[in-house]
Amino acid sequence: MNLFYYPAACSLADHIALIEAGLPYKLLSIDRERKTEDGRDFLALNPKGYIPALEMNDGTILTENQVILAYIAEQSGKLLPDDSILRWQTFEALAFMSSEIHGAYSPFFKDFPEAEKLRARDKIKKAFAILSDQMDDKVFLVSNEITIADCYLFWILMVAPKSGVDLPENLRNCLTRMKAMPSVIRALAEEGLG
Amino acid sequence: MNLFYYPAACSLADHIALIEAGLPYKLLSIDRERKTEDGRDFLALNPKGYIPALEMNDGTILTENQVILAYIAEQSGKLLPDDSILRWQTFEALAFMSSEIHGAYSPFFKDFPEAEKLRARDKIKKAFAILSDQMDDKVFLVSNEITIADCYLFWILMVAPKSGVDLPENLRNCLTRMKAMPSVIRALAEEGLG
Ligand SMILES: N[C@@H](CCC(=O)N[C@@H](CS)C(=O)NCC(=O)O)C(=O)O
Ligand SMILES: N[C@@H](CCC(=O)N[C@@H](CS)C(=O)NCC(=O)O)C(=O)O
Repeated sequence: MNLFYYPAACSLADHIALIEAGLPYKLLSIDRERKTEDGRDFLALNPKGYIPALEMNDGTILTENQVILAYIAEQSGKLLPDDSILRWQTFEALAFMSSEIHGAYSPFFKDFPEAEKLRARDKIKKAFAILSDQMDDKVFLVSNEITIADCYLFWILMVAPKSGVDLPENLRNCLTRMKAMPSVIRALAEEGLG
Repeated sequence: MNLFYYPAACSLADHIALIEAGLPYKLLSIDRERKTEDGRDFLALNPKGYIPALEMNDGTILTENQVILAYIAEQSGKLLPDDSILRWQTFEALAFMSSEIHGAYSPFFKDFPEAEKLRARDKIKKAFAILSDQMDDKVFLVSNEITIADCYLFWILMVAPKSGVDLPENLRNCLTRMKAMPSVIRALAEEGLG
């Protein structure tokens, strides 16, 4: 499988998941002219133009972070709880972070007007309160074992300072713990962020 | 199962899916004071405060539109293609509509500044072009059989005029066809939109 990525972008979630899942993968970055690291036209492969994108072994391109994460879990039989309700809560957390937090980071990445930043900060703050309640005193978001939701959560928490929103204590501690995980250390190093 | 909803809101996707799936359901609206139609405090049930929310038969609350739709498909064994790649593309389309289009409707619902509307319109237009290419000349988005992606697509297309973005022809025709489907007619009638 090939993972198209930018260093430190949200594709980091999938990168960590691939390592945790123990699946073989190749990382391919995209340059400013939208050429892939192996010389192909990224827009022809993925007209959406954004990452993450996963190239399956048969050449099919899969996009959307939460769906790539679900695919990695399915391929490996790892990173999802056995319990059916906890599985649904894993997917729920992924969809929540994608729709309520990831989108709200845009004003900070793209330097939109202050009014938009204020509104986004409010949304992010409320969303972190929900995630903090969900995590409670568990080791990870959904259970004490890592799931694909935590792979995405790591990136969401890593980027939070850009938005100026403070992390609730349990989420801050989770970020610290995850930074010390071999999979995370390896993923950051492979993206040149060591 | 109970579906918490507002008339004509994005919960319409789940409502249509429940009918197509043939699952028993009860609709419960939320009033301005966040009381549910059966007299409960909605925020206590769902701290996120938004709809859709599905109350499972054991009382568990599930949120996030695309996840509720996946749950309905799983419970019924309907509304997902048998083919594995088409299944992944169904989930991909759901995540795409949620992250790239639904969020971009906010400036029109909430009357944000014109600059934001312009930016959102641009994003929505690009996203419709992607969906239009995906649908091509099929009857529905992912295949010629209806999937949960189409239930969400119906709402996305129904709301599009609010954003001032014109629909590509094949999507406009899909909207017209879906409006004539018994499940859609029934769902709209049950929400008082007949
Ligand atoms: N809906 C997509 C959004 C992905 C996304 O926002 N990707 C960003 C990086 S974190 C990106 O590639 N931005 C550059 C671009 O859109 O060209 C998903 O959930 O995967
Ligand atoms: N992330 C949620 C967002 C749901 C959402 O935007 N719901 C809207 C109606 S379409 C809503 O309830 N808005 C009112 C509110 O947030 O209080 C999902 O994908 O289900």
